[in-house]
Amino acid sequence: MSSYASQADEIEQARQRIASAYDPRLLESAGHEMIDLLVSQLESCQQSVGNVLNWNSPGENVAEAARLLATGKNDGEEKSLSDRVRLLAETMLARGQNLQDPRYIGHQVPASVPLAGLFDAIGAVTNSVMAVYEMGPWATACEISLVEEIGKLIGYEEGAFSGFITHGGSLANLTALLTARNVALGESWKEGVSGTDPRPVIIAHGAAHYCIERSAGILGIGTDQCLKASLDDRGRIDVEKLEALIIEVQSKGHPIIAVCASACATPIGAFDPLHEIADLCEKYEVWMHVDAAHGGAACFSDRYRDLISGLERADSMICDAHKMMFVPALCAFVFYKNREHRFEAFQQNAPYLFDPSAPDIMEYDSGLKTIECTKRAAAFGLWGLWSAFGKELFADLVDVTFSMGQVFYEKLRAASDFQVLHKPECNIVVFRYLPEGLAERGADQIGEFQLRLRRKLIESGEFYIVPTSFEGVAALRCTVINPLTTPEHLDELMNALREQGRDLL
Amino acid sequence: MSSYASQADEIEQARQRIASAYDPRLLESAGHEMIDLLVSQLESCQQSVGNVLNWNSPGENVAEAARLLATGKNDGEEKSLSDRVRLLAETMLARGQNLQDPRYIGHQVPASVPLAGLFDAIGAVTNSVMAVYEMGPWATACEISLVEEIGKLIGYEEGAFSGFITHGGSLANLTALLTARNVALGESWKEGVSGTDPRPVIIAHGAAHYCIERSAGILGIGTDQCLKASLDDRGRIDVEKLEALIIEVQSKGHPIIAVCASACATPIGAFDPLHEIADLCEKYEVWMHVDAAHGGAACFSDRYRDLISGLERADSMICDAHKMMFVPALCAFVFYKNREHRFEAFQQNAPYLFDPSAPDIMEYDSGLKTIECTKRAAAFGLWGLWSAFGKELFADLVDVTFSMGQVFYEKLRAASDFQVLHKPECNIVVFRYLPEGLAERGADQIGEFQLRLRRKLIESGEFYIVPTSFEGVAALRCTVINPLTTPEHLDELMNALREQGRDLL
Repeated sequence: MSSYASQADEIEQARQRIASAYDPRLLESAGHEMIDLLVSQLESCQQSVGNVLNWNSPGENVAEAARLLATGKNDGEEKSLSDRVRLLAETMLARGQNLQDPRYIGHQVPASVPLAGLFDAIGAVTNSVMAVYEMGPWATACEISLVEEIGKLIGYEEGAFSGFITHGGSLANLTALLTARNVALGESWKEGVSGTDPRPVIIAHGAAHYCIERSAGILGIGTDQCLKASLDDRGRIDVEKLEALIIEVQSKGHPIIAVCASACATPIGAFDPLHEIADLCEKYEVWMHVDAAHGGAACFSDRYRDLISGLERADSMICDAHKMMFVPALCAFVFYKNREHRFEAFQQNAPYLFDPSAPDIMEYDSGLKTIECTKRAAAFGLWGLWSAFGKELFADLVDVTFSMGQVFYEKLRAASDFQVLHKPECNIVVFRYLPEGLAERGADQIGEFQLRLRRKLIESGEFYIVPTSFEGVAALRCTVINPLTTPEHLDELMNALREQGRDLL
Repeated sequence: MSSYASQADEIEQARQRIASAYDPRLLESAGHEMIDLLVSQLESCQQSVGNVLNWNSPGENVAEAARLLATGKNDGEEKSLSDRVRLLAETMLARGQNLQDPRYIGHQVPASVPLAGLFDAIGAVTNSVMAVYEMGPWATACEISLVEEIGKLIGYEEGAFSGFITHGGSLANLTALLTARNVALGESWKEGVSGTDPRPVIIAHGAAHYCIERSAGILGIGTDQCLKASLDDRGRIDVEKLEALIIEVQSKGHPIIAVCASACATPIGAFDPLHEIADLCEKYEVWMHVDAAHGGAACFSDRYRDLISGLERADSMICDAHKMMFVPALCAFVFYKNREHRFEAFQQNAPYLFDPSAPDIMEYDSGLKTIECTKRAAAFGLWGLWSAFGKELFADLVDVTFSMGQVFYEKLRAASDFQVLHKPECNIVVFRYLPEGLAERGADQIGEFQLRLRRKLIESGEFYIVPTSFEGVAALRCTVINPLTTPEHLDELMNALREQGRDLL
């Protein structure tokens, strides 16, 4: 046999091995099995049968993941493929964090609506992507229809705004601030930031999410040039001080790339006074950006939309559907008030991508607007959920979870052994457990106790809450972002903290 | 009823409405139905029953997506929820691009292994995320185990390298180049790029993916400072000219942030001579970066791994698993040869995220290494697939599809009415259809014909291929990235081009 024929033969054998992986019967059997496993997991979580967080040390988990990876083929010879797939799926479910357990009251990542995950799964199994319209015509259409509806709910003028989806709030803020930088500095895209003197600055909410300062670092502005706006006693931007800062910075000749407000800011969920900030930005001709990753979804709610009043005046804003729209990560929206800014972030030449024979379609080529070239059909989950239940579902989700912030606040205030550190505006509550004997100790000891208490609690699997720092001292932080979390769960959380705390003291 | 009681009542009603969306029975019925739809779709695609691309104009698709979005609740009253969900899923499948059809021979986005999509779906339905270890302990473990294995296959020294997954090749290249910038320029993260003079430059493969030049724009370096390395007649970096360019740039005092090689470059899939480039980078003490988004997976293949020999000498490199590892988008790896660089890209302070009481665990907090804060469990698809089939599957996938590039090349060369424009090194082939009567016309007409021919072909749904430009004239481009595409499909593609071309001439 010639070498060419031998090679053809080997390729044919490889092709046959591959065929089993692409067999529709495997998709069928494994798919139905996975659905059953997921349903069973959802039931257990909702009923709090197991642990919230399945705690294993990093070393232990990594060793197990590596072991399963290494034994792929060998185990396959002993067991059937379907047994192997089942084992892998069970392992994934057994060793993770269970957001669907109502005792998950932790980070701003939701117990997403399971149906949204199924719509996302259609994208995953078919590998639906975007970049150019023809690669994802339907994904593009879903995304655009959502952008239009959400933009209008925010209050942007129909036909005048533009938007897109990207992979997460950090990337969304980065892209919007890149646009702001390019608009503010003229030729910085081509020439770089290096020619600019005095140095350009970004003014951000004093407790903005870390990705805002990071954006300054990434964009060549420098984190030292990310100035922090002073906050008032409710954790919101102090507008008078902001005006003074703008005047000072402009008088020294520093270009201001953007004022970045928060709706809400991460630490205690404080919503900035957007109208007053917009007034200043108009007066001093500065780009207004709002990080509404968490709070933007208040646009769905009659009860809470006042929190984001003025958002429609922002030159750019971002909102994570994978937070308060309860879809799986990642699905973050970026909006520009003026659609003429939609191509400001990037310029590129890629003949193999963008077809010059169809210029009308370039408007629909997502890659021209996003850092991603190939992009997942990240709209599928939200589009499917909305089209199945109507947008009223999102109002309900915001209303139920935001209202629980107030409920929890009142419970904490009524308890003499808890210290609640702010009046919540939404579903984020920061507090400390301060039993008798601890309150009189120094701040360091109080803070250290909170951290140890939390770690003990989460490793027990009873509840999941997160650590933070409030006025320089460690504290506990909850976000009620599972709509099945009830007032009773919050009572139980307080009791669990008391019990775990007793052991610690 | 008091206003407080009335509010509590409304919240309770909202809670009840929400419950139906979280009902495990809905997940069960809709989930099994979706699996059946996906299986049926996969079968149709594999048998080429329908169109590859379901072409509808952007306007038409957007109108339909908006209509379904707007009618969510109303239609729900007429039909059952399960009918509605089925309709939505069917619409998603009916209006997309079908990568699983072997006549999809288009962009570098694979017909992913369906099972990988199912493992991803576990992440989507449970909303598995990362950022801090405790939010995704198992996702973290899967990612780390993959990083370790792939890094070793590439040839990095065990224990000395580091890596992570991010959302796409563009973001991966951006993150690696951010690290290179921070290393090269010292204080640029804090101080910005603005202090630097003469301006820093990036030297990139002359036909590097557009995201490299974009990175220069984003990072404050400026796209004008992204210098293009000259290419040889095979489309690879010309090493002699590269050395001359490095010497010239350094002699003028410009810091070189990185030399960016490609493995392979997008236009014709040319692999740069990595050892020779590494020699230069060592000699002149320049950071070597390799965009191995497409070709990195050659590390699995005995037959093709020579193409990336020297990759293990790159200071940083990226590789998209959602290309030649055949998992759904997005799953891109970044590697640093020296693990001490893993925290160079970012610095931040986020007390609500990173727990100072558990410093050992910060090594496992993915958010410290990635632009994403919250990140999908993007490793699930690849980890599950590898653990089910073993890494031999990836060797087979590379071997089968890369070998088809050569097969197609030979077919095109043998046909007098086709012009093949390069000898392929992998599964990317660029060519023109040049029937009698066209060949003697001017380049503009020849190019325009290719674009019109392609558009006609793809809108017919018969095949999906993409446009490109070769030496300034439009051409056709195929990537064989569905392992079910056989030599017979390539014959049929050539015949389809002939038939569609006849109508056009």
